[in-house]
Amino acid sequence: MKSEEAYRVPGFSANGIHAGIKADGRPDLALLYSTRPAKIAGVFTTNCFKAAPVLLDQQRIKKGLAQAVIVNSGCANAATGEEGFADALAVSKSASQALGIADDLVMVASTGVIGHRFPLPKIENSMPRLVTGLREEGIADAEAGIMTTDRFPKIALRKGRFGNREVTLCGIAKGAGMIEPNMATMLAFVMTDADIEGEALDAVFRRSVAKSFNAITVDGCMSTNDTALILANGVAGNPPLKKGGKGLSRFGDLLGDLLGELARGMVRDGEGATKLIEITVEEARTLQDAKRVAYAIGNSNLVKTAFYGGDPNWGRIISAAGSLGIALPVEKVRLFFDGVPLFAQGKGVPGREKELAAIMQQPEIHLRIALGMGSRSWTICASDLTFDYVKINAHYHT
Amino acid sequence: MKSEEAYRVPGFSANGIHAGIKADGRPDLALLYSTRPAKIAGVFTTNCFKAAPVLLDQQRIKKGLAQAVIVNSGCANAATGEEGFADALAVSKSASQALGIADDLVMVASTGVIGHRFPLPKIENSMPRLVTGLREEGIADAEAGIMTTDRFPKIALRKGRFGNREVTLCGIAKGAGMIEPNMATMLAFVMTDADIEGEALDAVFRRSVAKSFNAITVDGCMSTNDTALILANGVAGNPPLKKGGKGLSRFGDLLGDLLGELARGMVRDGEGATKLIEITVEEARTLQDAKRVAYAIGNSNLVKTAFYGGDPNWGRIISAAGSLGIALPVEKVRLFFDGVPLFAQGKGVPGREKELAAIMQQPEIHLRIALGMGSRSWTICASDLTFDYVKINAHYHT
Repeated sequence: MKSEEAYRVPGFSANGIHAGIKADGRPDLALLYSTRPAKIAGVFTTNCFKAAPVLLDQQRIKKGLAQAVIVNSGCANAATGEEGFADALAVSKSASQALGIADDLVMVASTGVIGHRFPLPKIENSMPRLVTGLREEGIADAEAGIMTTDRFPKIALRKGRFGNREVTLCGIAKGAGMIEPNMATMLAFVMTDADIEGEALDAVFRRSVAKSFNAITVDGCMSTNDTALILANGVAGNPPLKKGGKGLSRFGDLLGDLLGELARGMVRDGEGATKLIEITVEEARTLQDAKRVAYAIGNSNLVKTAFYGGDPNWGRIISAAGSLGIALPVEKVRLFFDGVPLFAQGKGVPGREKELAAIMQQPEIHLRIALGMGSRSWTICASDLTFDYVKINAHYHT
Repeated sequence: MKSEEAYRVPGFSANGIHAGIKADGRPDLALLYSTRPAKIAGVFTTNCFKAAPVLLDQQRIKKGLAQAVIVNSGCANAATGEEGFADALAVSKSASQALGIADDLVMVASTGVIGHRFPLPKIENSMPRLVTGLREEGIADAEAGIMTTDRFPKIALRKGRFGNREVTLCGIAKGAGMIEPNMATMLAFVMTDADIEGEALDAVFRRSVAKSFNAITVDGCMSTNDTALILANGVAGNPPLKKGGKGLSRFGDLLGDLLGELARGMVRDGEGATKLIEITVEEARTLQDAKRVAYAIGNSNLVKTAFYGGDPNWGRIISAAGSLGIALPVEKVRLFFDGVPLFAQGKGVPGREKELAAIMQQPEIHLRIALGMGSRSWTICASDLTFDYVKINAHYHT
């Protein structure tokens, strides 16, 4: 973590305060603001039971422009029916009025308990204070306002030069762990001063999300509120990045790198997590096969508990890989932990116990499985399954 | 549990002893024997990494006849390569010689640690003692021989009359929980004196397994050794049960009931389990949709920990159901616990907290979700996710 001073993006300001949604006095309301309307792209949960703010954002994002994002933690505003949708609209209205901008330039996001209504008056009453406090170096405050059970903030910055202009990207995120009692939610917001065409922004953002936020798993659960947004306000004055233009792929690399840092932070901060397991599936016949095998391993409770216990339990890993109906060539499958072979030619590789015991003590372990079927590969990050996960998720009563 | 005397099937004998595979002196070798070759049907794991005994059984079952089943616990004989297959053959040979029957009439099953070879001499040396001790009332001993981390035996009996003859079915099973460190394995063996045609036996057994063993989940993991066999020796002398004959569906009901009892026992005895959650999905458009939703709920760690914690957390349940890409009509979905509504018309049902708190204390809870899309339904049983699950599976080092 850099000092909060470092987290600035020209043309953006931010703030985070306690509005009274959370009972414990921690920040629970955050605002991101661009001095001018920015290009926007977004990725949302595909859950059928989408929260009200997600439904509202999905309408608004169609026009491709936004100027502010208002986010609360402590209440998901999900499964709240028409009343909940009206509440999301009211929060947006409150923000747009205080900011003096068009209402449909405001995006809304929420995270917290499912099935409860907003304490709307508290949010409305806090809005002037939230807006007055907006400042360029306020991004770290905004991050504090979206955190729930997160143990540490996830905030990342990248800079690059495009046509002799410096371009900055800064992202904040909250964890893929359980939030309050009811759901696992991830929220992520990226601000950049890059000048970029809307279509190009959408394409590069979707690609980067697929390789970062969509390549992690804590418990395999998908929330009703998952939202990732990027706002690009063009203040940097670089030559506009376009589809097919040479700057775009370099911008995509920066963005992918930034989202990757946030995503790994989410896994490390997964509920009760003590280890980050990077799982690479190689030599798959199709990309889909590679992903399915990676998630089967990363979501297996038997694999996750073995990592927690420090047990290099390859039997559980190959069993998970073999259970999907993909006809793996048993004799060709090889499994490695940080390069040390555990399984090959249909059986365990003996004599590596000492190396493996040391590897299992590491906070990050790279598991690699080669399927011997083709040339496609995919990598995900997973957390382990621990007593604390059960404690956090069982012993909280609504 | 009845007394061991009650568990007898005419024409069958059984035994279970300690052969020295397990270190702690508990029974680890079991034998089931029919006085004459019996019709046989079986269902096996679809895992690619099938254990050696599974590969051997899949060859032998093709001829439809068997006379003995030799089962060991404490060693899975999985991921052991050609040597492991030779070991399985050697165990079979040892049993067939001691019994004086053709070798290809012996079925083999194993459960325990993956990747370790058998202590073959111990098994061979124990075989005479195992065979000498065969007795009609020995089925409970055989059950003891196949148990591993199981806390209680799973043994069930059904009787029916077919053409004025009494027909008996008796089944034993071991749990779908973690066995030794490396795998979740279920083994089940049913003996019946019914006279039944091979094709009919196969059909009725597959159907019953689909609704029992394939409708439970502890942790969603599929082992390398899962095996369910039924032997029918015809000693009852009933008019042969045939496909399309009127007795077959009644026999199927008895068998389904028997397997259901064993399957529920496995869930109740799932690793660390404190609750059995019966999940019925109704009004699905297709059977596949109903099954997918049921398993998404039953395998969700967030749902399972909520049940452990006694929290009627409907947000996690609808979120799990909504995450599959099935376009659920949100307004039509209803959720009930033991008949008490929790969710309807897109939001939570208020005012039922007291009833729900009482229901959550029950050892068995019936969760029902109606999707409002069609008329297909499916029911599964799941266990909760507890500290003990993590303890059992994390704190055992190879």
